[in-house]
Amino acid sequence: MRHDGRSAEQLREIRLTRHFTMHAEGSVLSEFGNTRVICTASVSERVPGFLRGSGKGWVTAEYGMLPRATGSRSDREAARGKQGGRTLEIQRLIGRSLRAVMDLDALGERAIVLDCDVLQADGGTRTAAITGAWVALKDAINGLLADGVIKKDPMHGQVAAVSTGIVDGQAVLDLDYPEDSGAETDLNVVMNEAGAFIEVQGTAEGHAFRRDELDEMLRLAEIGIKELQAHQLASLKQD
Amino acid sequence: MRHDGRSAEQLREIRLTRHFTMHAEGSVLSEFGNTRVICTASVSERVPGFLRGSGKGWVTAEYGMLPRATGSRSDREAARGKQGGRTLEIQRLIGRSLRAVMDLDALGERAIVLDCDVLQADGGTRTAAITGAWVALKDAINGLLADGVIKKDPMHGQVAAVSTGIVDGQAVLDLDYPEDSGAETDLNVVMNEAGAFIEVQGTAEGHAFRRDELDEMLRLAEIGIKELQAHQLASLKQD
Amino acid sequence: MRHDGRSAEQLREIRLTRHFTMHAEGSVLSEFGNTRVICTASVSERVPGFLRGSGKGWVTAEYGMLPRATGSRSDREAARGKQGGRTLEIQRLIGRSLRAVMDLDALGERAIVLDCDVLQADGGTRTAAITGAWVALKDAINGLLADGVIKKDPMHGQVAAVSTGIVDGQAVLDLDYPEDSGAETDLNVVMNEAGAFIEVQGTAEGHAFRRDELDEMLRLAEIGIKELQAHQLASLKQD
Amino acid sequence: MRHDGRSAEQLREIRLTRHFTMHAEGSVLSEFGNTRVICTASVSERVPGFLRGSGKGWVTAEYGMLPRATGSRSDREAARGKQGGRTLEIQRLIGRSLRAVMDLDALGERAIVLDCDVLQADGGTRTAAITGAWVALKDAINGLLADGVIKKDPMHGQVAAVSTGIVDGQAVLDLDYPEDSGAETDLNVVMNEAGAFIEVQGTAEGHAFRRDELDEMLRLAEIGIKELQAHQLASLKQD
Amino acid sequence: MRHDGRSAEQLREIRLTRHFTMHAEGSVLSEFGNTRVICTASVSERVPGFLRGSGKGWVTAEYGMLPRATGSRSDREAARGKQGGRTLEIQRLIGRSLRAVMDLDALGERAIVLDCDVLQADGGTRTAAITGAWVALKDAINGLLADGVIKKDPMHGQVAAVSTGIVDGQAVLDLDYPEDSGAETDLNVVMNEAGAFIEVQGTAEGHAFRRDELDEMLRLAEIGIKELQAHQLASLKQD
Amino acid sequence: MRHDGRSAEQLREIRLTRHFTMHAEGSVLSEFGNTRVICTASVSERVPGFLRGSGKGWVTAEYGMLPRATGSRSDREAARGKQGGRTLEIQRLIGRSLRAVMDLDALGERAIVLDCDVLQADGGTRTAAITGAWVALKDAINGLLADGVIKKDPMHGQVAAVSTGIVDGQAVLDLDYPEDSGAETDLNVVMNEAGAFIEVQGTAEGHAFRRDELDEMLRLAEIGIKELQAHQLASLKQD
Repeated sequence: MRHDGRSAEQLREIRLTRHFTMHAEGSVLSEFGNTRVICTASVSERVPGFLRGSGKGWVTAEYGMLPRATGSRSDREAARGKQGGRTLEIQRLIGRSLRAVMDLDALGERAIVLDCDVLQADGGTRTAAITGAWVALKDAINGLLADGVIKKDPMHGQVAAVSTGIVDGQAVLDLDYPEDSGAETDLNVVMNEAGAFIEVQGTAEGHAFRRDELDEMLRLAEIGIKELQAHQLASLKQD
Repeated sequence: MRHDGRSAEQLREIRLTRHFTMHAEGSVLSEFGNTRVICTASVSERVPGFLRGSGKGWVTAEYGMLPRATGSRSDREAARGKQGGRTLEIQRLIGRSLRAVMDLDALGERAIVLDCDVLQADGGTRTAAITGAWVALKDAINGLLADGVIKKDPMHGQVAAVSTGIVDGQAVLDLDYPEDSGAETDLNVVMNEAGAFIEVQGTAEGHAFRRDELDEMLRLAEIGIKELQAHQLASLKQD
Repeated sequence: MRHDGRSAEQLREIRLTRHFTMHAEGSVLSEFGNTRVICTASVSERVPGFLRGSGKGWVTAEYGMLPRATGSRSDREAARGKQGGRTLEIQRLIGRSLRAVMDLDALGERAIVLDCDVLQADGGTRTAAITGAWVALKDAINGLLADGVIKKDPMHGQVAAVSTGIVDGQAVLDLDYPEDSGAETDLNVVMNEAGAFIEVQGTAEGHAFRRDELDEMLRLAEIGIKELQAHQLASLKQD
Repeated sequence: MRHDGRSAEQLREIRLTRHFTMHAEGSVLSEFGNTRVICTASVSERVPGFLRGSGKGWVTAEYGMLPRATGSRSDREAARGKQGGRTLEIQRLIGRSLRAVMDLDALGERAIVLDCDVLQADGGTRTAAITGAWVALKDAINGLLADGVIKKDPMHGQVAAVSTGIVDGQAVLDLDYPEDSGAETDLNVVMNEAGAFIEVQGTAEGHAFRRDELDEMLRLAEIGIKELQAHQLASLKQD
Repeated sequence: MRHDGRSAEQLREIRLTRHFTMHAEGSVLSEFGNTRVICTASVSERVPGFLRGSGKGWVTAEYGMLPRATGSRSDREAARGKQGGRTLEIQRLIGRSLRAVMDLDALGERAIVLDCDVLQADGGTRTAAITGAWVALKDAINGLLADGVIKKDPMHGQVAAVSTGIVDGQAVLDLDYPEDSGAETDLNVVMNEAGAFIEVQGTAEGHAFRRDELDEMLRLAEIGIKELQAHQLASLKQD
Repeated sequence: MRHDGRSAEQLREIRLTRHFTMHAEGSVLSEFGNTRVICTASVSERVPGFLRGSGKGWVTAEYGMLPRATGSRSDREAARGKQGGRTLEIQRLIGRSLRAVMDLDALGERAIVLDCDVLQADGGTRTAAITGAWVALKDAINGLLADGVIKKDPMHGQVAAVSTGIVDGQAVLDLDYPEDSGAETDLNVVMNEAGAFIEVQGTAEGHAFRRDELDEMLRLAEIGIKELQAHQLASLKQD
C-alpha cells in the first residue's frame, strides 16, 4: 500500500485534455495526478540549417518549468540566461522519443516543435510530457493531412512514457514527488505500441540496483505504458 | 459596435481563479477574454543584496510567455539566453505597480516574487498580469498574517490595470489582439482604489494622439479599472 | 522657487551642438543643464532581416551610459554581458519616438541607428536623447537628400521630449537629478510639432497622482516641448 | 566478426595510464582503443554553496572535447559561450556515477572535481571517462589518506562503464565510432564491483529494441565491466 | 613629410583637459589630434574578492568605444553581450601600465577604476587612454590625500604611452588612422619618467621588421613620451 | 646557474611530436620542458563571412587550457560561458604570428584553424603553441599540396616564438613557471627564419626595464628562436 493508497502497479489519475490553448496546431494538457504539463505542437515551414534543401523534416522539443511549478521557487531560466543541464537532458529525451515514430522524409521539409511546459510538478514531468506531446503531435499531423499539406501520415508508431522506481525496497509504478525524492532507484521507460523500448534510463539514487529489481521495474513499466497508450487513443476520439 | 460585439466601454469576460496551482503562496489564473495569465506569489526569506540587514522587504515581478501563447511560435527566452526588451519592460511595470501599494517596512526583511506567465495571449497580457498578481499577492500576505509571520498588513491599497486605445478613430476599452494590432494608439493605465494613477503609458502606434483623445481614453480606463477592482474583491471572497 | 532658482515652468539651459564628432552622418551633443548626451545617426545600407527585400527602411536607437556618467560608478554593461532593463526600455522609447515621424517607405531599404550615449547624467537623459537624436537624424536625412540617395524627405514631423514631475507637492518642468530622485511622480512626454502626443509615460514614485496633477504636468510638458522644438530648429540653422 | 576483427564480447585494447599530467591529485589517461580521455581529479577545500558549513563533501565532474578530437572540427564550447546539451548530459552522468560509490560525509567538507577531456574520440568517450575517472579519484583519495587529511576511506565501491549496442542485428560490446554511428540501439551501462547497476541508458537510434535484445546487451555489459574493473585494479598496482 | 604635414618625430596636437565631467574623482579628456578619449578615475572602498581583508588596494581599467567613434559604425558591445578580444587586450594593457607606478599597499584596501571611453577614434586610442588615465588617476589620488583618506602618495612614477610605426618604409611617431591602417609595423610603447619601459608591443602588419627598424622606432617613442609627460605635468598645474 | 641547472642562454628540452592525434590535418604535441600543448590544424572549405566570395583564405587560432593544466584548478571557460582576456590575447597573438608567413590569396577560399590546447602548463605556453602550430600548419598545407587542392605553397616563411625575461637581475631564456612568476620583466618574441620580428611583447612585472636589458633579452630570444626553428625543421623530416 503506497502513501496515496495506490497499489504498486497503479498509475495516478491520467487526464489528457486536447485543445487546451487556442493558437497551437496541437495543444494538450497532460496530467499525471497533480503533475500538469502543457504540450503544444507548432508547425513551421522553416527547418534547421543542416536540413535546408534536403526535403526532409524535423521534430524537436523544448521543455521548461514555470518558476513556481515546484514546492520552492526555482530561478527562471530566461532570467538566469541559460537552460540548466536537467532541462536540456529532458528536452533531448522528448525529442528523440518522438522522432523514433516519425518518418522525417514523409513529413517533408518542415519542422514541428513540441513545447512542454510544466505548470505544476509532482514527479514524472518528463513522462507526462512525452505522453502528452505524442497526442499534440498527432493533432498537428492530422491537421496537415486534413489540409492536404502532406499526403501520407509520417507517424508510424505510438509513444508513451512512464517512470518506475524502488521505494522502500519495493518496485512501484508512476512515482509522485514524495516517492521520487525518497526512491533508491528511478527508471524512466519510453515504449512504442508494440511493447519495444525507445528509451530506458535508470539511475541508482541510493544504492545500486540488482538485475531482478531491473526486471521487475521493466515489467511494471510495460503495464503502465499500455494503459497510457489506451488513454492517448481515447483522448484522440473526443472532440 | 466592436468586432466581438462589445460596446466601447465594455471589458471582455473577466475571470480570476484563485488556488490555480498548489505550491505557491498565492496562485491566480487571470483571464481577460482569451488572454490567460498564471500569476503566482512566492514568499522567500531572502532579500536582494541591497536590502540585506535593512529590515526592509521587497516585491518584484517576472514575466514570461510560453512560446506558443501567440499565433505564431516565438523563441523561448531561456533557449535564446536572454529576456527581450518587451519582457523586461513589462516585468518592471508589474513590479512597480505592486510596490506602489506595499509598505515594504511592514513586510519585514522578506521578498515576494510575482511570476506572471502567459499561457495564451490575446491582447492585454500586462494588464491581466497586474490585475491577477494583486490578488495572488493578497493571498500570500493573508497567509503571512494568518501564520503570524507578520502582524500588520503591509498592503495599503488595491491595484488593477487595463488597456484602452483608439481603434478606427474611436476610443475603446480592453483591446483584444485584433484590435491592438490595428490600434492607432494604445494606453495602459494602472490605478488604485481611490482612482489615482500609478502608471500611465501611452504610445502612438499610427499617428500622434490629441489631448481630447487622451482624455477619452483616461475616462474609459477609469470605468474599466473600477469594474476590475470589483472582480478582484469578489474573487477574494470565494474559497 | 526651485533648488536651482528656476520657476516651475522653466527648462534648464538647453544646448544642441551639431557636428560634435566627425565620423557620423549626424552627431549632436544634447545638453539639458548638466545632462550631456551624444546622439549620433549612422546610415547603413543593411536593414534588419525582417525587412530585407521589402524596399522599406528602418530607424532604431541604442542607449548607453558611460560607467561614471553618474554620481557613483555603475557597472559597464558590456562587461556584465547584458544591457539592463532600464537601458532597453529607454532605447525602445527613443526608437519608437523617432519612427513616429518617419515615412519608412520613403526612406528606402536602408537603416539609420541613433546611438545615444550619456557622458554626464543629471536627470532627464532620455528626454535629452530624444531631443538631440531628432536633430542628428535630420542631419543624416539632409545628407542623403543632398547626395541624391533619396529624393523625398521621409521625415514628416518634428519630435522633442521633456520630463515633468510632482516635487514637494508642486508640478515642475524638466527635473534635474536632485528633483528627480525626490519626486513623487515622474512624467515623460514626447510630442510632435502639432502638439499631439507620441508617448506619455507617467509613474507614481511616491504616492499615486490625481487627475488634476496629471493635467498640470501635461500643461507644463507642452510649454517645455514648444521651447525645445524652437531650440532644435535654431540649431539646424547654424553651421 | 566485427569490422576491426573483434568478437561480439570483446573490448578494444584498454590502457589506463596514471600520473599522466603532473599537477593534479589524480591524473589518468584512459584509452579504449583510439578513444583517449584525460581524467584528472582536483581536490579543493571549497564546497558548493548548498553544502557550506554542512561538514559534507562533494564530488562532481566536467566533460569537454578538444575541438579536433573528432573527424570534423566542432566549435569550441568556450568560444560559443555555452556547453551543449550532450556535454551537460555526459558530465552529469559521470558525476552521479562516482558519487554512487562515495560516502560524502566521510570525505569531509571538501570537493573533488573530475575533469574528463577527450583528446581523441572514437566512440565510447563517456564510458572511458567514467572508467578512468574512478582511478583518478582513487589516487586523489589515497593522497588525502596518506597525508592524514582524512582518516577513513570514503570510497565504498568500484565503478566502471561500458557501451553495448545492436549493430547489423547483433549485440556487440564496446562500440567504436564506425559501429556507434551505424548502431540501431545504443546502451551505456555503469556497474559496481558487485555487478549491480548504477546507471542504464539505452536509446533506440534506428528501431525500437525488444526485451530479448536488452537482455543480451546487459549480459555483454556485465562481461565488459568485469574486465574493465580488473584493468582499474591492475593500474592501481603500478607506480 | 607626412600626409598631414608632420615630421617623422612629431606628435599630433595634444590636449589633456581635466575636470571634463563632474562626477568622477578624476576626469580627463585626452586628445591626440582627432582621437578623443574620456578617462575617468572612480574610487571605491570595495576591492575585488582576492584582495578582501588584505589591506592592499587595486587599480584596474576598462575600455570602450562609442559605436560611432569610428568611420563605420561598429556593434555596441553591451548589445552583443560581450567585450571583444581587442577591447580586453587594451584594457588589460592600460591597467598593467598604471599599476606599474602604484604602490598598492600604500593605496590601502580600496580600488580605483579607470574608464577609458573613446568618443572619436583616429589612431592611437590606447596610447591616448594611458596618457590621459595617468592624469585622471593623479587627480583621484590627490583628492584622497587632500581628504586625509591616505597619508602617503602611492604613486611612485609617471606613465605615458605613444605609438610608432613603419609607414612607407620610414619610422614615424604617433600614427593617425590613415597611417596606422597602411603601416607595415606598429609599435606601442609605455614608459616611465626615467625613460624605462613598462610595455613594448610591436606587431608586423605587413612584413617582419628588422632590428634596426625596431631601434629607430624605440628612439622615436622616447622622444614622444618625454613630450607627453611634459603635457601631463603642465595639465596638472592648471585648474 | 638557474634553479633547474640551465645556463642563461639555454632552452628547456624541446620535443615536437607530429601525428599526435589521428583526425586533424596537422597534429603536433609541442613540449618545452614540462609545458605540453597540443596544436592541431583543421582545414575547412568555409571561410568567415567577410571573406566569402573573395577567393581569399584565412588562418586563425584558438587557445585553451585544460582546467587542471595548472597547479591549482582554474574554471573551465566553457562552463563560465566566456573566454577570459588572457585567452583571447594569446589566441589573437598565435593567429597573427601564423598569418605573417601565409599568402592568403594562394591558400584560396578556405580556412585553417589552429587549436592550441594546453595539457600541462609550466611557463611559456604561448611560445610552445606558436612553435608547434607552425609545424601543424605545415603538415596541413603539405596535405593540401599532396592532394592537389592547392598548387602553390602559400607558406612563405617559418615562425617560432620564445620567452625571455629578467630573473634576479639577469636576463634568461625560455622561462619555466617558477622563473616566470618571479620575473621582473617578461618578453615574448616571435621571429621568422630571417631573424626579423613578427611580434615583440614586453611587460614590466616588477620594475620598468632599461634599454640595455631589452637589448640583452632580444639577443637571447634570437639565439632561442634559431634553435627552435632547427627543431621544427628536424621534426618535419621524420615520419
